[in-house]
Amino acid sequence: MKLAKKTLDERLDRLYDVIIVGGGAGGLSAGIYTQRYLLSSLIIEKGRGRSFWMQDLRNYLGLPPTTPGRELLKQGQEHYLSLGGDYLRAYVEAVKDEGDYFSVRVKVGMKDSIYPVFRSKYLIAASGIIDNLPQLENMQNVYDYAGYNLHVCMICDGYEMADRRCGLFVNSEANINTAFVLNWFTPYLFVFTMGLFPVSDAMRQKLADHGYRLIETPIKQFLGENHEMTGVELVDGTVIPLETGLVAMGAHYHKDYLAGLNLQQAGENLVTDEMCRTSHPRIFALGDLKQGLNQVSIAVADGTLAATAIWREIRRASPARRWEADPAMAAP
Amino acid sequence: MKLAKKTLDERLDRLYDVIIVGGGAGGLSAGIYTQRYLLSSLIIEKGRGRSFWMQDLRNYLGLPPTTPGRELLKQGQEHYLSLGGDYLRAYVEAVKDEGDYFSVRVKVGMKDSIYPVFRSKYLIAASGIIDNLPQLENMQNVYDYAGYNLHVCMICDGYEMADRRCGLFVNSEANINTAFVLNWFTPYLFVFTMGLFPVSDAMRQKLADHGYRLIETPIKQFLGENHEMTGVELVDGTVIPLETGLVAMGAHYHKDYLAGLNLQQAGENLVTDEMCRTSHPRIFALGDLKQGLNQVSIAVADGTLAATAIWREIRRASPARRWEADPAMAAP
Repeated sequence: MKLAKKTLDERLDRLYDVIIVGGGAGGLSAGIYTQRYLLSSLIIEKGRGRSFWMQDLRNYLGLPPTTPGRELLKQGQEHYLSLGGDYLRAYVEAVKDEGDYFSVRVKVGMKDSIYPVFRSKYLIAASGIIDNLPQLENMQNVYDYAGYNLHVCMICDGYEMADRRCGLFVNSEANINTAFVLNWFTPYLFVFTMGLFPVSDAMRQKLADHGYRLIETPIKQFLGENHEMTGVELVDGTVIPLETGLVAMGAHYHKDYLAGLNLQQAGENLVTDEMCRTSHPRIFALGDLKQGLNQVSIAVADGTLAATAIWREIRRASPARRWEADPAMAAP
Repeated sequence: MKLAKKTLDERLDRLYDVIIVGGGAGGLSAGIYTQRYLLSSLIIEKGRGRSFWMQDLRNYLGLPPTTPGRELLKQGQEHYLSLGGDYLRAYVEAVKDEGDYFSVRVKVGMKDSIYPVFRSKYLIAASGIIDNLPQLENMQNVYDYAGYNLHVCMICDGYEMADRRCGLFVNSEANINTAFVLNWFTPYLFVFTMGLFPVSDAMRQKLADHGYRLIETPIKQFLGENHEMTGVELVDGTVIPLETGLVAMGAHYHKDYLAGLNLQQAGENLVTDEMCRTSHPRIFALGDLKQGLNQVSIAVADGTLAATAIWREIRRASPARRWEADPAMAAP
């Protein structure tokens, strides 16, 4: 059921089989599988994750390619709740390993917040990432286009950028290299550094050799209307007409609550085995938090894998159910 | 486009980037990703695979849990065709490795069959498995219930079997062990061997210890109506009332066309790496054909992985696209 401030007291003495941090594609899939394995679970979702911002989910089998990410989340939430899972809108502050179980401290409510602590045998970290965006004075101007034709994922939306005049927005020289992959889809590239870092001579030369424009002047604003970005205005008044854009400025990883658990990482990503198990035997990580492709389909499969691994372990540690357990169901 | 006998001639001199054998969940996902990577692909689907028979797909994020498998396939096929992929209803007879490319010989049409040969750089084996079913004189009686409440996948449908009087239909002593996993969902188990094999004394004892019934008399027919199986009638006239059932009789692997390519196997499954690549560097295997869970979500993710690995390889082997490639798109 959907928990709220008033109803969550009765859950505080429960030991959940699994607490899932994050109600995006991975977390919801893990929750659906967990409940279908007859295990108990609680999804804690802070809201407004990466898939929430996705205007069109164009590459997920079974849904029309115009399905917004929030539709997927809505459907998944209903699906999960119909299986008896618990769902709480809250922010996970800290997870503590108590030996046999985890204590999960959350903040509920922005005003008059309360800080309940839930407990579970297993933890699934499905809290994902959020893309860094160009920082303009008026951030609403960025949000007007991000997730529409100002994309954040080349694998998801490269197809829509094909042969278009495309802005590539970067915050480091390393990220400029995205241009030399993005050129598979379009060679009409304008690389915007926004003056955030110096560009080496070697990189300038490489961009020039490919005919890609390098623009280092900071951006004043994105131009366009109805969420259709049509160009960029620089602070010096120059206007660069564009048809599409890709932001490649890295991402923020939502995993502060895992600090202190000493999970093995590769860069910012959590290292996991083939069942999405981290270096802690009772913590799993899904989707964008772990190594691999940041795709909805991958996160959904990750949820399947983690829930299955947990079920197998709990099942094997449980006594076998004998027919005699319920004499009411008489044998013929 | 959908190819037919009349229209496929023009495709015979094409070298596809990828030919995908099988248009189930894995093949369609691979096709959608391949087309979105601006690669060319052909899906060859023989029809009536495992997901086609699935009456309710209850554990796939984004779709209501009453969605029939054929709905997923229909939506996926439209999605794939909208991206310009080629799709052919045909049976793949043989694949030959010609060094730089594969020759794929297919049989088109049940009557007046023709045998065209298509060519591709990469091959994706997504042809799946089909479950073995109890062989009764009247097979229609089996089809009336299989995929409804006579299930073939415990992970998919164990939830629906919870605490129900359940028949487990097996064709080997090894498969009887399914009972000791299925008992997580229900202990009210009737194991039907149908007299196909002798049962060891140790197994008889183990079943008896758990209170599970062993029934070795062959089955005359399933009982029920409107696809709701309500029991089994044995050849001696005995009737065993049931509420649900699971068939655990192994499966047939659709991979005859790979014979001669010497792909590494583990039992009947193809061995693959983390991107679904088989032991042949240009052949990938997805979903039920490879090791791992036989789940729609896994097959869909596998399609993502294989298509991405192929794209990366083709992209890296291709010359970089420079702006000058198309002077019509003038720089400002």
